[in-house]
Amino acid sequence: MCDDNNIIMKNFADRLIGEIQKKGNPCMVGLDPRLDQIPNFIPKDNIEDTLFEFNKIIIEQVADLIPAVKLQFAFYIQHGLAGINAFKKSIDFAKEKGLIVVIDAKSNDIGSTAEAYANAFLGNAFNADALTVSPFLGRDSIEPFIKMCRENDKGIFILVKTSNPGSGDFQNLILKGSEKAVYINLATMVDELGNDLIGETGYSAIGAVVGATYPQEASILRALMPKAIFLVPGYGVQGGTAEDTVPCFNVDKLGATVHSSRGIIFTKDLDISKEDYKAFVRANTEKMIADINSVLK
Amino acid sequence: MCDDNNIIMKNFADRLIGEIQKKGNPCMVGLDPRLDQIPNFIPKDNIEDTLFEFNKIIIEQVADLIPAVKLQFAFYIQHGLAGINAFKKSIDFAKEKGLIVVIDAKSNDIGSTAEAYANAFLGNAFNADALTVSPFLGRDSIEPFIKMCRENDKGIFILVKTSNPGSGDFQNLILKGSEKAVYINLATMVDELGNDLIGETGYSAIGAVVGATYPQEASILRALMPKAIFLVPGYGVQGGTAEDTVPCFNVDKLGATVHSSRGIIFTKDLDISKEDYKAFVRANTEKMIADINSVLK
Repeated sequence: MCDDNNIIMKNFADRLIGEIQKKGNPCMVGLDPRLDQIPNFIPKDNIEDTLFEFNKIIIEQVADLIPAVKLQFAFYIQHGLAGINAFKKSIDFAKEKGLIVVIDAKSNDIGSTAEAYANAFLGNAFNADALTVSPFLGRDSIEPFIKMCRENDKGIFILVKTSNPGSGDFQNLILKGSEKAVYINLATMVDELGNDLIGETGYSAIGAVVGATYPQEASILRALMPKAIFLVPGYGVQGGTAEDTVPCFNVDKLGATVHSSRGIIFTKDLDISKEDYKAFVRANTEKMIADINSVLK
Repeated sequence: MCDDNNIIMKNFADRLIGEIQKKGNPCMVGLDPRLDQIPNFIPKDNIEDTLFEFNKIIIEQVADLIPAVKLQFAFYIQHGLAGINAFKKSIDFAKEKGLIVVIDAKSNDIGSTAEAYANAFLGNAFNADALTVSPFLGRDSIEPFIKMCRENDKGIFILVKTSNPGSGDFQNLILKGSEKAVYINLATMVDELGNDLIGETGYSAIGAVVGATYPQEASILRALMPKAIFLVPGYGVQGGTAEDTVPCFNVDKLGATVHSSRGIIFTKDLDISKEDYKAFVRANTEKMIADINSVLK
């Protein structure tokens, strides 16, 4: 492990683990704006400005507290050009504030097209630090993303066991021969793919998405992918508790970053003032940090 | 079947089958621009203009020949805002020219996010006729897309057996109990999901992606999903022949739309003139139509 934050740790895993150690927690806040849940003090007459202003306030409140933010691409592309403008500005602003930026686009396509997605999200167009990738099309569909990680010190999180109720429909199907679930098969692949990109911290730039809503599966997956950093959705509104995230961590209390969005950024009181909203986001983030850290002691 | 093209056929499957019958072929051309393969007569100083101009020429050449075009989202988002502008303009122009427009984004996410993707690609933001959807996250991740299809007469093509070499890594895994491959399981789901959205033609707005590169699997899948329209990639540059696409069709010679992109739109002679390029695209399209129709007789 590396304690000196002045050392340039290029590997994505080293950068993320470094920030987790520096900030003292593994929390990740989701910048997933929904127009009908954005407080009324933010004008709604220009969608680009609305989305960016909302994100800017959140980023300013969480930047000194947490290592990373995640932007769910769907909530931007649904607003077309205005959304994409806000997406780009939000990524740039979060990076400027020292946050590690993950794009959640669950990209998946055949090799020659996957390369274009890697260029889009991790290359010049949006230049995030990491991206979520869906493995449905097989190993050759993931390789272009790994090439991007290798050449540009980026990271990916491959979907292994997602947090939604229906995740078992395919991920939990039991395979003939091994008598094991599809997600076990995927974990073996993620572990193999990650071997080439292990940093000084012992973690790989090839991580996995493992939902907090399935702690039993997480425990099995942790053992199968000891070097992968788990991106853990499902904490909070989706039902996962801090205790449920424990199996996602290694014995070194590292190896996972726990994500929350709706529980941090949305208030039922849309007439909240700007100052109160800032305090609300900060308090929610601090509460999440304390909650997660309490189970890692 | 409905022969009268003046009747408004609202269901997506009816619209697509109607266009296939009207144009007399099931071919789909891919608008997948790659900057380094766009002929030199198109200026390269403004990416938005370059991509749109390239697509515009292709659309003008193929609009009277074929029923539908498909835009691979990756080739636009990799150019950020400029790409998205060209994407939007190309979709609008293709629709204006009477083409059915399919977006290939292989969207997949948990329910609440999938809804945002449905809004993005099939709703107001881009308003395409149909979208490709990846089933990895399970049935609940597909439902928001089906809701959009039902309420707005849109269509989806669910990935079942993709055309790439690595498609078997996950899709061909054999399941315990049924002793059948994952893609068989998916086909059963697609067939069930499609039951609610069957049009007057007997085809459903819920289709499937089945690669021309796997004709044996296609034959099995055709029997399992009799009402699904197959979107068939893999013909041409990827190695699939016209003969290979035959198992994707039903006995009525309908039920599939065969896609080609690189083989239609890219020339090695980048110094080609505008007029020659137009003739090149038209000739390639006519050749594909003749090739596919020759095996359907």
